Amino acid sequence: MTDNYAMTVLKSDELNLIDEYWRAANYLSVGQIYLLDNPLLQEPLEAEHVKPRLLGHWGTTPGLNLIYTHLNRIIRKRDANVIYITGPGHGGPGLVANAYLEGTYSEVYTGIGEDSEGMRKLFRQFSFPGGIPSHVAPETPGSIHEGGELGYALVHAYGAAFDNPDLVVACVIGDGEAETGPLAASWHSNKFLNPVTDGAVLPVLHLNGYKIANPTVLARIPAEELDSLLRGYGYLPITVESDDPKVAHQLLAAALDEAFDLIAAIQQAARYDGATQRPMWPMIVLRTPKGWTGPAIVDGLQVEGTWRSHQVPLAETRTNPEHRKQLEEWLRSYNPERLFDEEGALRADLRALAPVGNRRMSANPHANGGLLLRDLDMPDFADYAVTVAEPATETAEATKVLGTFLRDIIARNGDRFRLMGPDETASNRLSAVFETTDRTWAAETIVGDDHLAADGRVMEVLSEHLCQGWLEGYLLTGRHGLFNCYEAFVHIVDSMVNQHIKWLTSSSRLPWRRPIASLNYLLSSHVWRQDHNGASHQDPGFIDHVANKRPEVVRVYLPPDANTLLSVAEHCLRSRNYVNVVVAGKQPALTYLNMDDAVKHCARGLGIWQWASNTTGEPDVVLACAGDVPTLETLAAVDILRRELPNLQVRLINVVDIMRLLPDSEHPHGLSDREFDSLFPTTTPVIFAYHGYPWLIHRLTYRRNNHAHFHVRGFKERGTTTTPFDMVMLNDLDRFHLVMDVIDRVDGLGDHAAELRQRMVDARLDARRYTREFGEDDPAIASWAWDHQYQAASLTGN
Amino acid sequence: MTDNYAMTVLKSDELNLIDEYWRAANYLSVGQIYLLDNPLLQEPLEAEHVKPRLLGHWGTTPGLNLIYTHLNRIIRKRDANVIYITGPGHGGPGLVANAYLEGTYSEVYTGIGEDSEGMRKLFRQFSFPGGIPSHVAPETPGSIHEGGELGYALVHAYGAAFDNPDLVVACVIGDGEAETGPLAASWHSNKFLNPVTDGAVLPVLHLNGYKIANPTVLARIPAEELDSLLRGYGYLPITVESDDPKVAHQLLAAALDEAFDLIAAIQQAARYDGATQRPMWPMIVLRTPKGWTGPAIVDGLQVEGTWRSHQVPLAETRTNPEHRKQLEEWLRSYNPERLFDEEGALRADLRALAPVGNRRMSANPHANGGLLLRDLDMPDFADYAVTVAEPATETAEATKVLGTFLRDIIARNGDRFRLMGPDETASNRLSAVFETTDRTWAAETIVGDDHLAADGRVMEVLSEHLCQGWLEGYLLTGRHGLFNCYEAFVHIVDSMVNQHIKWLTSSSRLPWRRPIASLNYLLSSHVWRQDHNGASHQDPGFIDHVANKRPEVVRVYLPPDANTLLSVAEHCLRSRNYVNVVVAGKQPALTYLNMDDAVKHCARGLGIWQWASNTTGEPDVVLACAGDVPTLETLAAVDILRRELPNLQVRLINVVDIMRLLPDSEHPHGLSDREFDSLFPTTTPVIFAYHGYPWLIHRLTYRRNNHAHFHVRGFKERGTTTTPFDMVMLNDLDRFHLVMDVIDRVDGLGDHAAELRQRMVDARLDARRYTREFGEDDPAIASWAWDHQYQAASLTGN
Repeated sequence: MTDNYAMTVLKSDELNLIDEYWRAANYLSVGQIYLLDNPLLQEPLEAEHVKPRLLGHWGTTPGLNLIYTHLNRIIRKRDANVIYITGPGHGGPGLVANAYLEGTYSEVYTGIGEDSEGMRKLFRQFSFPGGIPSHVAPETPGSIHEGGELGYALVHAYGAAFDNPDLVVACVIGDGEAETGPLAASWHSNKFLNPVTDGAVLPVLHLNGYKIANPTVLARIPAEELDSLLRGYGYLPITVESDDPKVAHQLLAAALDEAFDLIAAIQQAARYDGATQRPMWPMIVLRTPKGWTGPAIVDGLQVEGTWRSHQVPLAETRTNPEHRKQLEEWLRSYNPERLFDEEGALRADLRALAPVGNRRMSANPHANGGLLLRDLDMPDFADYAVTVAEPATETAEATKVLGTFLRDIIARNGDRFRLMGPDETASNRLSAVFETTDRTWAAETIVGDDHLAADGRVMEVLSEHLCQGWLEGYLLTGRHGLFNCYEAFVHIVDSMVNQHIKWLTSSSRLPWRRPIASLNYLLSSHVWRQDHNGASHQDPGFIDHVANKRPEVVRVYLPPDANTLLSVAEHCLRSRNYVNVVVAGKQPALTYLNMDDAVKHCARGLGIWQWASNTTGEPDVVLACAGDVPTLETLAAVDILRRELPNLQVRLINVVDIMRLLPDSEHPHGLSDREFDSLFPTTTPVIFAYHGYPWLIHRLTYRRNNHAHFHVRGFKERGTTTTPFDMVMLNDLDRFHLVMDVIDRVDGLGDHAAELRQRMVDARLDARRYTREFGEDDPAIASWAWDHQYQAASLTGN
Repeated sequence: MTDNYAMTVLKSDELNLIDEYWRAANYLSVGQIYLLDNPLLQEPLEAEHVKPRLLGHWGTTPGLNLIYTHLNRIIRKRDANVIYITGPGHGGPGLVANAYLEGTYSEVYTGIGEDSEGMRKLFRQFSFPGGIPSHVAPETPGSIHEGGELGYALVHAYGAAFDNPDLVVACVIGDGEAETGPLAASWHSNKFLNPVTDGAVLPVLHLNGYKIANPTVLARIPAEELDSLLRGYGYLPITVESDDPKVAHQLLAAALDEAFDLIAAIQQAARYDGATQRPMWPMIVLRTPKGWTGPAIVDGLQVEGTWRSHQVPLAETRTNPEHRKQLEEWLRSYNPERLFDEEGALRADLRALAPVGNRRMSANPHANGGLLLRDLDMPDFADYAVTVAEPATETAEATKVLGTFLRDIIARNGDRFRLMGPDETASNRLSAVFETTDRTWAAETIVGDDHLAADGRVMEVLSEHLCQGWLEGYLLTGRHGLFNCYEAFVHIVDSMVNQHIKWLTSSSRLPWRRPIASLNYLLSSHVWRQDHNGASHQDPGFIDHVANKRPEVVRVYLPPDANTLLSVAEHCLRSRNYVNVVVAGKQPALTYLNMDDAVKHCARGLGIWQWASNTTGEPDVVLACAGDVPTLETLAAVDILRRELPNLQVRLINVVDIMRLLPDSEHPHGLSDREFDSLFPTTTPVIFAYHGYPWLIHRLTYRRNNHAHFHVRGFKERGTTTTPFDMVMLNDLDRFHLVMDVIDRVDGLGDHAAELRQRMVDARLDARRYTREFGEDDPAIASWAWDHQYQAASLTGN
């Protein structure tokens, strides 16, 4: 295409209309930032028309409005199915403005009509107490992407495009955001996009040149270098550069025509002509001034086109008449009286530029994924149960068992379920899924590759950020999934899950936002079985991280064995609008509950394991446990106690759902004090063996009547490369130490207990010596479970 | 350079010697992974010679050894000053092997000599209980970079290179790691490197093609696309590709010659010839097989050159004679008997290939930064104090005051202090630093740019990962710095700070590792003053995150005003081997303590503010506070209480160092129970207003005698875009609610208290109504502090 051609794409009439539509969006954006009243400027602007606190971001907004306006043209022209992801999410006013221009805003928020009173409310509510956030947010129709923390626009876009073959996800990437790590990695998502069954992502890199107070890297490298970079990422960049609106309109219209033609050609080739090579997908590089059409100079300093336009270019509009005058000139420069009629309605010929119905980007159901959500077609999870004739007599690899269930879920839901993981699906023992599917891979393949295919349902990339972001985008557009991750490294996405939880918290308060499938984590390769990788891989703190968030959204499960994991997983996959964190082991481990009991136990969330207790009455001590390894050690401790101190009345409680420990006033899953006290009698010592940092159990139980008698063992950052049993010993979570804890806390156990305590001390020393000498766990301890079979007969009373 | 030339760089003798040195490193690497005994294979290999648990990673190791060997050649040839950063940190055995070959290992660990017994110990200790980790770790001489969590190799390399003009940081980047976000962003660090005063980074992208179970993205894009990508990142790639060792040696030697020539030329041009344009720095792309020289086929499956060689290619060497036979053949293929003499010492002509003394990469002092650490030259921080004639009568912007102190630290320490931040230095009100320095910027500049210069000391990039990683690399090589960040978004580096804390924890146990400067965070724009950005920017959980880590390393400070911030900052900047988290406000806020009192208060970490209390005896209630906004609200509450309920005996305690709340058995800063009980009498109600999630205070105090009477207010994830006072009301942290809490918890206050409580309820409703109507805080409340001046006279008894 020649530049001459590009300059004639839009006929003069269309050009003018498009320009006016853009001006209307800009006017509404500025109005939101500044105006409390006088929305159509039908009177001269007075101080009291201006908000007392000016909060909002102008700089990125005109660019966002420009792209939006031109995408509208493409949508109408091609009946295209497009959603809009706003990387520069500070540009909230722009997206709200466009939703309002399209009528969606008034449909969703019926109090805000398409008239001057509606416009007044629209302006007033923005960044106003009780109103809407200043960023693109769940409150913004058409959005699946919170503005605020930057870096995730493009990865969300790809997540939205997967398995949506007709969708084009337009994704604006600010040049600030482009400096972040997650965004930099996201470009390579095109190696995981299947042109046959997935939709397209159209990245628009918006180079307005500045961040808050600095230029941006990508705006300050030579154009050839940027071009080389983007081609290296696998894209065909189409550049649009101008500071003249008329020129920019022509160039951007031509660029979008070209991009959509290329997308259509790629999809045609892949879908009908048998093309199998990864295509170069088009993208747009848009260079326009920051704060374009805003005040050029304020207080003698250049503002338009610089970082000074980032937030509010005129800061003192209530107190400084000169600023207010400039604001009025700025607002009037858009000629609102020509764009809106006297009642405040958009001129009909302008309104006609917007797409209609679900084609409006602000009303596209893909951006309100719950509307499109279809339940997973799941087999009966009980069919995957392992047989447990007696508790604690047989072993299974919990995640391996789950893998068979996931395999069949994948087989039945080829269009709406994906399994994400940073190259750890096999390592986490979920390999059964490869019996039915492959790893998603659209890059080169060679002979010898293992289960790679463009239509694979397992997405593996060595980036937790991409796994998380793809899944978020996929869920937000109405699909399902699970992220399996090493427990320690899920901290890499701490901040992303924060934002997703905040999104869910806000959207669950918006009736028009339909619930979406929960974000499910399977954390395996957990702290107690990273003995081979050592301290750098040992961290159970993700639970603490999510536990700080709103209880409406957060759930944490620690199933102790294979059948409980199946039950928990099924529950999580059916749930909506939660973040479910499931921690489960991948190593061969004892099984405790048959499927019926597992279902009941998981439904209760915690409960007495009567078969491992030796009293149905008031116990002398409660041993509680949460997590697979703590459960094993606790059962082993109980077995020692029951053999050695048979008169001691022991109750064993296993906790699957740790939020049950919270008061019912604090969490929907919380137990009432009455229930809690019946499980943990108010003055009975409790020795609690917990998977993670011990103080989390204190944080959950500090309001309980019995809290003063809770003694919690867990991970206290004593980690290294050593054997599994040495790891629990290092952290005083081992069976011997738990027995010592009981003896130390129960009065009147007598001489035999004192002697037993010394034997426990010696046993620890022996185990440690053995480990140091032979490099492995003492087989007598490692196989202890089997030797004694937890005295299954004695434990169960048979 | 032609290929022909490249193939003749090494004379035949040198080629053979280099190959043998590489084989020696490979032999020692395999030996570490597998052998318990028989280190020189002087007897046939028996089952008992093999470790019972095989833990380690072979796949990446031969490549790491190859690069190391060739860097040795360059160092000797040019007397170059080089350190080695091992991105594929799983390759621990390779780095240990090289340190051993150079003699460093035996110098550092004197029990492990350069003889067969030493070699036996070297092998045995690897991934062995009580031994060394399987990854590159603090225990590895010459390392500043933990292997484990991937993504930070290149950013650490740049951090090491800054202000080290003679240093070349060779940085191996695995193609797995290259998929991570932080690594993808790190390439652009070259826009922040000053060729005049900084050293050079030489990235070596090692494409061995596979991750754990998958191919890698960068190995599966066309060579031209990769070349384009790397040039787009601003590098000149030099490619070395071979699976024939002899060819690879020649090509790599030539490539390194070329790279070092280019580096020298760039530095010459910038330092002496006045070049100012950002250069294209050289880098190497090395394509060699994964698991090279290991077993080609195991159990009928291709292993060498595939992902199957990632960990231990032969897994059953103790139980499967065929595997053991293959292991023995593999080990003998290196001809250990020709490389080491009968006593186990490396052949002298091979040993001569290693550099000597501090030029050995394993002994380079830059990789043990504490050796090079020089104290900061700091002015007296008291000179920057704000005047506080009476508590709570004047205001200051705490971080702005700190900025003046930082300005002068920067001025005095131009070679050893940097201030990092994601484009928020001005936003966090530290702008005074720009009176003495600029923002580091080596990319293009244009007229109108604000304080950009190649030698600027303020590093701003819109990536918390880069800020954190640069600073880590800078600190680990013996320099100083501070990272200022929005509080909510520091979660982006949760996982990085985990790894750094683990590094500090381990290295503080190694006497040969000298202490380094602490990693200091200044978290501003904190949860209570992100009212304009809303929920997405409101999160105080980083404190919780670090509080889970080892108490030897972690410190958290919440200075309530400007002078306490100065005192805390100075303390942090002088400290060693800690992670210091300082949370401080940037908004105008009351000042409470003159500098003398501030120093004393900070030294104590917490204490009674007698001037705000109305009793020196036993109080009826303790109001405690930590954080600037909670302190303000608490003082306001105390003022109301003292005016309204003058007979109520109130004690006010301010906490700067929250670790003081822990028992002394749990943290070096912890108070004894006796001290604690004297501050918080064991049955007195305590209303604690805390900056962050309230349960953290419970987690710190649950062992205290008075814990049952602690009632904590803090952030409970009620966040939105609203006014500052509405934010504290939303979370029940406001003065009115604190008064209500006191009334609810102190018995016998009588009717007036009941009436006061109702007034407080009404005041909250009024404040809320005002906010919703006018969009700002009620001036009567917002200026309350000034109206009453906290009744400074009454509070202080004057």
